[in-house]
Amino acid sequence: MNKIKIGIVGYGNLGKGLISAINNTDDMELVKIFTRRNPKDFNIKEIESLDNILEYKDIIHVLVLSLGSAIDIPIFAPKLAKDFNTVDCYDNHSNMLNYYKIMDKIARENNNTSMIAMGWDPGLFSLNRFMAESILPKGKSFTFWGPGLSQGHSDALRRIEGIKLAVQYTIPKKEILNNISNQPDNLETCDTHDRQCFVVLEKNYNRNDITEEIIHMKDYFEDYNTEVNFISEEEFKQNHQSMPHGGHIIRIGETGKDHKENIKFSLELASNPEFTASVALAGARAVYKMNQLRNYGSITILDTPAQFYSPFSLEELIDEYL
Amino acid sequence: MNKIKIGIVGYGNLGKGLISAINNTDDMELVKIFTRRNPKDFNIKEIESLDNILEYKDIIHVLVLSLGSAIDIPIFAPKLAKDFNTVDCYDNHSNMLNYYKIMDKIARENNNTSMIAMGWDPGLFSLNRFMAESILPKGKSFTFWGPGLSQGHSDALRRIEGIKLAVQYTIPKKEILNNISNQPDNLETCDTHDRQCFVVLEKNYNRNDITEEIIHMKDYFEDYNTEVNFISEEEFKQNHQSMPHGGHIIRIGETGKDHKENIKFSLELASNPEFTASVALAGARAVYKMNQLRNYGSITILDTPAQFYSPFSLEELIDEYL
Repeated sequence: MNKIKIGIVGYGNLGKGLISAINNTDDMELVKIFTRRNPKDFNIKEIESLDNILEYKDIIHVLVLSLGSAIDIPIFAPKLAKDFNTVDCYDNHSNMLNYYKIMDKIARENNNTSMIAMGWDPGLFSLNRFMAESILPKGKSFTFWGPGLSQGHSDALRRIEGIKLAVQYTIPKKEILNNISNQPDNLETCDTHDRQCFVVLEKNYNRNDITEEIIHMKDYFEDYNTEVNFISEEEFKQNHQSMPHGGHIIRIGETGKDHKENIKFSLELASNPEFTASVALAGARAVYKMNQLRNYGSITILDTPAQFYSPFSLEELIDEYL
Repeated sequence: MNKIKIGIVGYGNLGKGLISAINNTDDMELVKIFTRRNPKDFNIKEIESLDNILEYKDIIHVLVLSLGSAIDIPIFAPKLAKDFNTVDCYDNHSNMLNYYKIMDKIARENNNTSMIAMGWDPGLFSLNRFMAESILPKGKSFTFWGPGLSQGHSDALRRIEGIKLAVQYTIPKKEILNNISNQPDNLETCDTHDRQCFVVLEKNYNRNDITEEIIHMKDYFEDYNTEVNFISEEEFKQNHQSMPHGGHIIRIGETGKDHKENIKFSLELASNPEFTASVALAGARAVYKMNQLRNYGSITILDTPAQFYSPFSLEELIDEYL
């Protein structure tokens, strides 16, 4: 059996998650991990300089771009889409349609296929939300994130002078989640979530001052019920190094005469980057199959036939799952 | 705006659910409901004899077949697929692939599109189960049904001599559902579900005899923890006329070094037929769009791009959901 040959661009948490995700499949294999850093700094045989990536143009079937959305993806993805099929987890919602169009043009001109935004949010959450709303057009939708580590909010904490280490967990309010059908549908994220911070201070900083600075930080904490916990560096390293996350997409729709129908999609993740990598890798399989069928250009989870995420044929899937 | 013109074949619970589901959309309209019974027996202006259906060949865009899977669908669907695009909720798993091929051939030869098995199980449950297994290939899957009314088991109760009225609710075992990550993956349905019966007796039948007959009924109750409740006809009519259902598809997968990732899709339905009708109607929208794009033959939820369930365009969906 010819395996799908995968290249990974970027060797961070997501890139590491991709390596183990590939090992969990029977139909894919890792060719190279490309880095902008010096490959000699890494003790992995598959590491390669990004400068040499074009040498692999005819070997690699799909490149998975494990790069940051803020700066890297918009720079690197359009360049790479000229020579490779790609999949990414781009998550900048406000630029998504523009990015889709840019990638679509380049991939299409080069007979390549590029899947964008293939993670869980955006990704699985997007799919579940719009499908639930298509099935139940009359109703209300809710999105909960967490309990989980928010990278953006943790970064915001670490920018405060006097904070040495910090993580922030986003936590859905249980009393709302457990009584969802009685909630109005115009709730803001701050109405439905709490924020829990674990902070290690530098020496000679005052807990009260730092707490005040955190809970009044605009856009991040000001509108939220925020809990600040000060802990030792030892405790931080022991208990706050993993990256759990998850959440819920809920649709409550009406049918007939006043019947309530509830659709709920939930994730409970021990490792956000490893799970995201697993979603992206299923996307890489779809990219490969779509490209074989000459579906060129950008694709997304919204328009890709789900069968292509699976290693099995449509007839096998019908026989097994339908 | 030109609405999608829908015909309904069969005026049972599902057919009634379809009428209200159409009313909840902005882009679809009901043309006729076709019945094998005498249309004069119904007080609905859209009712029409099934004998006259061919008169609507050029008017109706999609026929939704709200007919039984046991006998009616295999007889009527292939005939109707010659002249119409169709969608059905066929649920006979053991014959699914054969049925797919029969419908594919007929629809394809006539430039029609037929979506099969578009409900929640099979349907949404099938999609979620195989997608979760594609994303997390290493792990275990669980399916729970209920709490919900099982039509098949209720029918089985009513076949017992001495039982006047009866319903059976299938109930997932809470202690297993709440501790799912510690369960083995080879559990049988009887390990994970209880059965709860509400029975109205005819006069002069003995509760103990009937209970014994129920709990020892092969294939239906013998292997289950079964609770039998005897109630009055008044109580039956007051509390057991609705058709709630639902369930859970759960995948627990491993990533990285011993991280557990949990994907869960849940339904909690006040009306099983009305929700099933809503799913089928989203399918009818996809059938219409796929047929416009000259995708002829059978389609299923496994191979249909999800965007087509929505009334919105792909660009609108990307902008709103991704």
